[in-house]
Amino acid sequence: MVSELRVNGDRLWSRLMAMAEVGATAQGGCNRQALTDLDMAGRRVLTGWAEAAGCRARTDAVGNLFIRRAGRDDSLPVVMTGSHLDTQPTGGKFDGVYGVLAGLEVIETLNDRALTSLRPIELAVWCNEEGSRFPMAMMGSAVWSGRLALETAYGLTDRAGLSVRQELERLGIAAHQPFAHQNVKAAFEAHIEQGPVLEEKCKTIGVVTGVQHMSRHEVVIEGQEAHAGPTPMHLRRDPIRVLAELLPALYAATAQRGPDARFTVGFIETLPGSPNTVPGRLRFTVDIRHPDDGHYRALRAELGRLVRAALERHSLHGEVRCVWEAPGVSFDPGCIEAVRAATARLGFAGMDMVSGAGHDSCNVAAVAPTAMIFVPCAGGLSHNEAESALPADLAAGANVLLHAMLSMAES
Amino acid sequence: MVSELRVNGDRLWSRLMAMAEVGATAQGGCNRQALTDLDMAGRRVLTGWAEAAGCRARTDAVGNLFIRRAGRDDSLPVVMTGSHLDTQPTGGKFDGVYGVLAGLEVIETLNDRALTSLRPIELAVWCNEEGSRFPMAMMGSAVWSGRLALETAYGLTDRAGLSVRQELERLGIAAHQPFAHQNVKAAFEAHIEQGPVLEEKCKTIGVVTGVQHMSRHEVVIEGQEAHAGPTPMHLRRDPIRVLAELLPALYAATAQRGPDARFTVGFIETLPGSPNTVPGRLRFTVDIRHPDDGHYRALRAELGRLVRAALERHSLHGEVRCVWEAPGVSFDPGCIEAVRAATARLGFAGMDMVSGAGHDSCNVAAVAPTAMIFVPCAGGLSHNEAESALPADLAAGANVLLHAMLSMAES
Repeated sequence: MVSELRVNGDRLWSRLMAMAEVGATAQGGCNRQALTDLDMAGRRVLTGWAEAAGCRARTDAVGNLFIRRAGRDDSLPVVMTGSHLDTQPTGGKFDGVYGVLAGLEVIETLNDRALTSLRPIELAVWCNEEGSRFPMAMMGSAVWSGRLALETAYGLTDRAGLSVRQELERLGIAAHQPFAHQNVKAAFEAHIEQGPVLEEKCKTIGVVTGVQHMSRHEVVIEGQEAHAGPTPMHLRRDPIRVLAELLPALYAATAQRGPDARFTVGFIETLPGSPNTVPGRLRFTVDIRHPDDGHYRALRAELGRLVRAALERHSLHGEVRCVWEAPGVSFDPGCIEAVRAATARLGFAGMDMVSGAGHDSCNVAAVAPTAMIFVPCAGGLSHNEAESALPADLAAGANVLLHAMLSMAES
Repeated sequence: MVSELRVNGDRLWSRLMAMAEVGATAQGGCNRQALTDLDMAGRRVLTGWAEAAGCRARTDAVGNLFIRRAGRDDSLPVVMTGSHLDTQPTGGKFDGVYGVLAGLEVIETLNDRALTSLRPIELAVWCNEEGSRFPMAMMGSAVWSGRLALETAYGLTDRAGLSVRQELERLGIAAHQPFAHQNVKAAFEAHIEQGPVLEEKCKTIGVVTGVQHMSRHEVVIEGQEAHAGPTPMHLRRDPIRVLAELLPALYAATAQRGPDARFTVGFIETLPGSPNTVPGRLRFTVDIRHPDDGHYRALRAELGRLVRAALERHSLHGEVRCVWEAPGVSFDPGCIEAVRAATARLGFAGMDMVSGAGHDSCNVAAVAPTAMIFVPCAGGLSHNEAESALPADLAAGANVLLHAMLSMAES
């Protein structure tokens, strides 16, 4: 019975540990940035396993690697899974890699039972998801989905001035072949949560229904430098006054938008930054996220309103500027239901949730029905060499992936 | 009549402009840091003028330069004035220099009328007041007054590793002669206000009755780095929460301590400082000043209490540490009265005020009756190449200095 199928959790764990050797760091993490020799080495390890498993591997013109297992009717649109093998400079063993190897484990599990699905299965390894070497996160999936021009991706350069095109050519990836994306019946991506919610709620599976709306803003307040001693408070043009008024107001506004609202001030800078000088300039960033479009827009508008009101009250000049915005994504109801049903059937404790971070699936969802599967990671820690997850949780996520994919691959 | 005596404002202004040529910067300021060749050049210009005016110049073992005009009874304790010739790296034409050249102008004015005071007059040029090259502000006057050990001053080094002792020897200043300070009947220092109060109140003379109590504190709050997207607000350990609570509370606490209270956050740093990461660490400085001892202590205690309360409320660790404290100074009532009386007699609009910044007079006041005279500077701007003051105000301050000194030098 297909419903009795289970992945081999030990094999999955061994391969995660083996892949982590490629670019291993002294602190137990991984440094395998996009389109480096180490990235190529990781792809070769994966391709070796995939070809031994009877799959065919090919790379598209932007460096996305696709591993295909034929279906009974190989002309049908594919059921796809995948994630990425590239890491942050001080990344961990699981971010991205888990989704790739869980996909390979689905293929291996079908091989173990000599089962062939009606539809072909494809495992995608998206190029440069992290955006830490070439400054565009989710680059490969963006080109694949048609959201980013191939030439724009080619033109991106790293800090040494090397372009994506140069590095693709150096690594022997044909950058001049015609580009088109395959037809996809459904797509799934397994990933560690990168947050603490599943762990806190004692859940094994996150049924990811979409991705938050998110934007990043830069607030600049112009003050006037003045000596901290001789300048009375009422004669200062002190930009910290604006911060003092804004911060509590923004935390309060966020709280009013419910537990899903996120507000982060990650960067604050004072100029000249001298302890005995009233700053002449204050700069800080505000990151706003919410899964609900209405709440998100209200929170964004509130930021602008509060900044303007504080500037006016303190007779200061300044501005708030949106420097990046990614609209939220609602995943496909059919794919979500496939994940939810597989979770229930396998008896795992699951919960619906919205991803707080962007993933390749955001791009894939633009052209194909898509959903994601989250598993817990210790303390919610990610983008960190100490990233860690439990073998049993990783196996559970791979089993949900297996059954969600099969439910789509047989119809 | 001695009471008819007035300084020559044009000569004072010309000499200020001439001295500003020594270390002139492209932006109209001055870079004449302590114990550099330019500092020596400035001292030589001054000594040339002083010797032409019949004075005797000598330098003590820490590089303080004293210019002496004999009195009718040259064995009596001196009436002293002076300030400093060294500047900030991007300093202006008036900070310090004005007090030195106003003192020289007092001597020249007595020469013009061939008057000799009962007591000798000494003009002090204190070594390294700014503390920008060798990291100890008011160094020379601190050694002179016995508040700082000579060997400690000698051991201070600049960024290139050169010590005060090495530089004194290189410049030919005998660093091994016996050290003692002269007996002083009274001391006065004329200085630009370095703040906006006289200008705002349309006053020409600030009768400086003392110097504020002041201290600098460093606050460090330990948070936990977390991804701005997937981490719900209630599961964060966000140090910015503490800032949001502290800033308004500290502005309010300062306002409660009256218009003389000063509270400055000049430096804020978030680590790692990434826009989409909750900071793992927040560091900021707090500068607190108040002329009244009780209010000052209350404000200092309030800072500690508020930090501890905010840490507790948000279950975070952190600390507030006092990194520097300078107790306030009350100047001598007799010297203050001499300044006040001279201001009134000369018909200038004056007001009592407390200095917000430290000056050499804080050290001098430890061993001799002392007071200061402030004149307005444009916009309160100082430690800035754009520092500026009106010739008429500078002459007014020199006239007050002249008459305050004479009232002490004749009794």
